[in-house]
Amino acid sequence: MSERVADHLAGQKDAILDRLLTLIRFPSVSTDPAFAEGMRGAREFLLDRLRAMGLTEARLLEPATPVPGGQPAIFAAWTGAGPDKPTIMIYGHYDVQPADPYELWTTPPFEPAIRDGRIYARGASDVKGSTTIAIETVGAFLAVEGGCPVNIKLFLEGEEEIGSPSLPAIIAAHRDLLRADAMLSADGGGAAGPRPQLNIGCRGICALQFSLRTAKKDAHSGKVGGAMRNALHEMAKLVATLHDEQGRVAVEGFEAGVPPLSNTIRAEAASLPLDEAAWYAEFGAAPYGDPAYSVRERTTLRPTVEVNGMWGGYTGAGGKTVTPAEAHAKLTMRLIPGQEPEVAQAAVKAHIERHAPKGVELSFDYRPGGTRAFTLAADHPLRAAAAAVLRREKGGEPAVTRLGGTVPITTLFQEQLGISSLMFGLASPDEDAHAPNEFFRVASLEEGLRLWPMILTELGRMRAADFQGR
Amino acid sequence: MSERVADHLAGQKDAILDRLLTLIRFPSVSTDPAFAEGMRGAREFLLDRLRAMGLTEARLLEPATPVPGGQPAIFAAWTGAGPDKPTIMIYGHYDVQPADPYELWTTPPFEPAIRDGRIYARGASDVKGSTTIAIETVGAFLAVEGGCPVNIKLFLEGEEEIGSPSLPAIIAAHRDLLRADAMLSADGGGAAGPRPQLNIGCRGICALQFSLRTAKKDAHSGKVGGAMRNALHEMAKLVATLHDEQGRVAVEGFEAGVPPLSNTIRAEAASLPLDEAAWYAEFGAAPYGDPAYSVRERTTLRPTVEVNGMWGGYTGAGGKTVTPAEAHAKLTMRLIPGQEPEVAQAAVKAHIERHAPKGVELSFDYRPGGTRAFTLAADHPLRAAAAAVLRREKGGEPAVTRLGGTVPITTLFQEQLGISSLMFGLASPDEDAHAPNEFFRVASLEEGLRLWPMILTELGRMRAADFQGR
Repeated sequence: MSERVADHLAGQKDAILDRLLTLIRFPSVSTDPAFAEGMRGAREFLLDRLRAMGLTEARLLEPATPVPGGQPAIFAAWTGAGPDKPTIMIYGHYDVQPADPYELWTTPPFEPAIRDGRIYARGASDVKGSTTIAIETVGAFLAVEGGCPVNIKLFLEGEEEIGSPSLPAIIAAHRDLLRADAMLSADGGGAAGPRPQLNIGCRGICALQFSLRTAKKDAHSGKVGGAMRNALHEMAKLVATLHDEQGRVAVEGFEAGVPPLSNTIRAEAASLPLDEAAWYAEFGAAPYGDPAYSVRERTTLRPTVEVNGMWGGYTGAGGKTVTPAEAHAKLTMRLIPGQEPEVAQAAVKAHIERHAPKGVELSFDYRPGGTRAFTLAADHPLRAAAAAVLRREKGGEPAVTRLGGTVPITTLFQEQLGISSLMFGLASPDEDAHAPNEFFRVASLEEGLRLWPMILTELGRMRAADFQGR
Repeated sequence: MSERVADHLAGQKDAILDRLLTLIRFPSVSTDPAFAEGMRGAREFLLDRLRAMGLTEARLLEPATPVPGGQPAIFAAWTGAGPDKPTIMIYGHYDVQPADPYELWTTPPFEPAIRDGRIYARGASDVKGSTTIAIETVGAFLAVEGGCPVNIKLFLEGEEEIGSPSLPAIIAAHRDLLRADAMLSADGGGAAGPRPQLNIGCRGICALQFSLRTAKKDAHSGKVGGAMRNALHEMAKLVATLHDEQGRVAVEGFEAGVPPLSNTIRAEAASLPLDEAAWYAEFGAAPYGDPAYSVRERTTLRPTVEVNGMWGGYTGAGGKTVTPAEAHAKLTMRLIPGQEPEVAQAAVKAHIERHAPKGVELSFDYRPGGTRAFTLAADHPLRAAAAAVLRREKGGEPAVTRLGGTVPITTLFQEQLGISSLMFGLASPDEDAHAPNEFFRVASLEEGLRLWPMILTELGRMRAADFQGR
């Protein structure tokens, strides 16, 4: 049955690619209110498509009470497989990261351009490409077979790139509607590429922005220079204390309660070899990081504190002889299993407060909490289904891998709805997600349109009861 | 004779204030090409006024070959006092600092607003207010007396706020025209306020901008975080090495060849007491700086390295989980007598290079050189003339002070034309020059319109020969 569906999808490839490009053209940047129109356009396009495919209950899900900065999720269902068959939540997101710096893009970020088999655009890889694969697979089952092998609940988030501020409230308001046996995520890569991979975990995340003030106003550097704290010097000194010379996080209490990595986990990380020299060469960067760990471990099994943005003083053309009174920094922390977001945030905040000298006034701006790291249990049916699919499609035992990034939904759905997730996205790690010239491979689109029919078919061989208590 | 002129100026005060506000309304920001129209407007307004006052040769002075980023100077003369009388160059500048951050201004920076006897606007204090006083004084002598006590050469610079890139070439191209016995500068404060001051020196300056790169492009912090250098972390570490904990410059070789401060100079600095607690309170800042020196010494007799701007990564609304590959900083250094700008620049550059680890690629953007510190000789006739005026107007012996800022023209005219300068501006140190809500006191305008007729009269009692060899 999955072959007929895959054949149908292969025949529809041009139309599917067209729909993907249309979706990409909506600049759905969730973090910036200036892009509200792009968000709305993406939502309407997707709802129209889901209804046209024959899904029911296609609608927006919102919290009972609006959450500042929140974005509605898109929901749709097909429940014709019957109560004995598992109900699979399919997850994707329709929002994207900001595209700036725009001047580093070869072609405009929201005007997709195909070059050398790659679709260049913001959101192509993260994650409109894989989301389109998931949606179109469901549509093809309905069109060709008149039904899916499993019951489907589609959930497309609109705030993945901003830490899902209203997602817990959306889940709370629609708990019954969102009941499912397991989740298959179009976000979180690993399925693409020559070597089969089973992506079974991701790092968590929390964020913290802070500002510091050294005087009530900027002053002329000729007048005060030498006798007044410069906010940029103080910011530099504070940020410099966050890591040691080898890039290890130097924040006391940041890893409180985290056990050392087990041999099993380290062996899993080693099972997919990484050419570290090639990895660094691809980014044009020099080797860096804690020498006690491999690059794969550093980027998936170790936590980070990263300054994503830092600014203050005069940054325009020419110069300005000012002693700045204010400086700002945006930080995010990647978390590993065992780390509590609140504890990690509090540790970083306390570190900054402890290192700020008298005369430096700090102010913090952050949403308490964040997302814990996620791991799919070793004996979960999703693992077996995905491994079978990957074995068949690619040959050989899939490597067990983890994502260095964060898919908050995996943690949230586990904690809030008791369902586990498998990340089955088609994005590859080299596709410059979150950076200029992000792209998605046309070949990955094609591969996804083969793999997704297979995994839904595989899950359709299982019973709903197989997922009880997982 | 100066009384009649001062009376005339007092009677014309409203018209003079009007002309000052008109001059301020031209947004003459020299550093940013977007303000070319404001620069042109200010020039035309001043040329028209100088011609209307009866000065001759009113024209723009430009280099023989254009200098990138340079701005023409305004020149005008009156030479009717005869060859035995000294020829005094009067200096001011018509350009201003950038006004951003605009949102911190109570009223728009180029729409002057008078509140509580203060003219709030960019350029009001630095230095359109004092420049207007100097111009109007000359105009009043011509109107009331039919001539000035001394020969006058007016020189209004258009690039003081950007380090005078074309000034040396302008001087070289117009050496004969610019011949004079001494210079009286409307820039450089000290004449205003209750306690008479003789402003006899200023710090020098040089600048350096640098960028660093840790990878060829920004990357997703979830993908690379923990294994790739973050440009902002590296920038912070580098900037943090520039000073010790007490704010002392920690750059090797920065003060090469500088003698220790003499007791005479330290006594001069102490002769005008400073309420340090009040000074810090005014800025809303905590005490800071080298404890071996007083605040006045730190800000006028000690050199600085200041980061005026620092930026990198995502600085917009919300967040972006990026590991930035680039970071930038703009620095200026304030220099003291004995420091060579090239040597100071080279020391800072070498320090940054020495502290940058492997894997951090640096690029520097700077104009070699800068401006040396300036000191007016103790026995120069300008000192005697100004002291006499201040004694008469204010009573008591004027304190000898130095400016913490830089008036590049003082050094340049001494080095290029062999003429010394006295800074006789009316700006006060609390007027937020270079910062939001800059203002100039209406009372300082009135005081200047009394002091400038007196000093020109005093200089008119001297002979040109008194200035020979000074």
